Amino acid sequence: MRDVFHEQLDSVFDDLSEIGKRVEDAVRLGTAALLRGDVELAEQVISADIEIDRARERVEEKAFALLSLQQPVAGDLRTIVAALRMVSELERMGDLSVHVAKVARLRAPNIAVPEEIRPVVARMADVAEDMVARVLAIITGRDVESAIALGRDDEEMDQLRRSSFTQLLSDDWAHGVEAAVDVALLGRYYERIADHAVSVANRVVFVVTGQNPRTVGA
Amino acid sequence: MRDVFHEQLDSVFDDLSEIGKRVEDAVRLGTAALLRGDVELAEQVISADIEIDRARERVEEKAFALLSLQQPVAGDLRTIVAALRMVSELERMGDLSVHVAKVARLRAPNIAVPEEIRPVVARMADVAEDMVARVLAIITGRDVESAIALGRDDEEMDQLRRSSFTQLLSDDWAHGVEAAVDVALLGRYYERIADHAVSVANRVVFVVTGQNPRTVGA
Repeated sequence: MRDVFHEQLDSVFDDLSEIGKRVEDAVRLGTAALLRGDVELAEQVISADIEIDRARERVEEKAFALLSLQQPVAGDLRTIVAALRMVSELERMGDLSVHVAKVARLRAPNIAVPEEIRPVVARMADVAEDMVARVLAIITGRDVESAIALGRDDEEMDQLRRSSFTQLLSDDWAHGVEAAVDVALLGRYYERIADHAVSVANRVVFVVTGQNPRTVGA
Repeated sequence: MRDVFHEQLDSVFDDLSEIGKRVEDAVRLGTAALLRGDVELAEQVISADIEIDRARERVEEKAFALLSLQQPVAGDLRTIVAALRMVSELERMGDLSVHVAKVARLRAPNIAVPEEIRPVVARMADVAEDMVARVLAIITGRDVESAIALGRDDEEMDQLRRSSFTQLLSDDWAHGVEAAVDVALLGRYYERIADHAVSVANRVVFVVTGQNPRTVGA
């Protein structure tokens, strides 16, 4: 019985990895659509989101089945509940990529981000994409050290956001309100993608180490 | 044994109501700080958030204890998992109120929102606050009809956001980039508070009716 259980649990984590892959695509392609003003690519990201939503539903089904049929306790229980939360966060990251793609679509064939601030926005996107790729490896390998390191690297995103605001609000900003609002909101979306990546990584730490006394003390 | 279980489950929902009350305060006071440029009130909202975080931890502890000691199945299992998600959403609504308070603090003693657009922002805040108050009643009374109605009323927030963008991006906007960016981000925060309220309400529907075939089919 235990072996079947752990096989099914592994299958839940395989599904999480697969969703992580889809999210990685969404972030990368959403950014490409944004920085090229490519409406078709934007549409592709927007319509692919339904697949992430469906994959989330499948993970939820499996996790509930495991909870109710196998009645796990302690570490196994914690792992399944963590998986349920991770899948919500991954889905949210997909939604945020859709928001990026929608900004791209709204301004295409123009590029929403003025050239002068494009390096900062592109770097935010890179950081977000890199964090998603790393979190994917962390889920797959249940890699605690990398997960802890990911949490520390969140700092660069904050710095990038601050520097984007400095540019937007300087007297030299010559691109008007619309572009400024677009860039501010895009920064928010990338920041949230990074936040969710950190949060997923933290859940992996928790699953593997079981350190958190809040949940094991029960 | 079943009675103890349901008493404990009720106590989890009492905790959720209490957190909902704190969130309601955070939204109301954060907005007051914003619209008055009141730095002390803003600080109050920011420092009170730790209480919401702690209350969330207590709910998580209780829910895990219930899951692992009582081994619930079917409806009861679904209810506890839903409670875990609801508490995450409520905490997020608290965080978003903190973001509102931080914008207030950043611009105080000035008021971040220019007078001309204040009615729209104030209305967004009212809608968000009203949705939080309603979701609180929905949690307390496990009121499915009101929960379904709440989902439908989300539309006004979308309209308000659109009308705020129309104002920000019009040629008549005389308040520069900084105020526009503040208002755009504030709109995003209130919109997200409303989204989370709808999501919590949906979980109540799910808990009470158990309609969702994804989780009961397992």
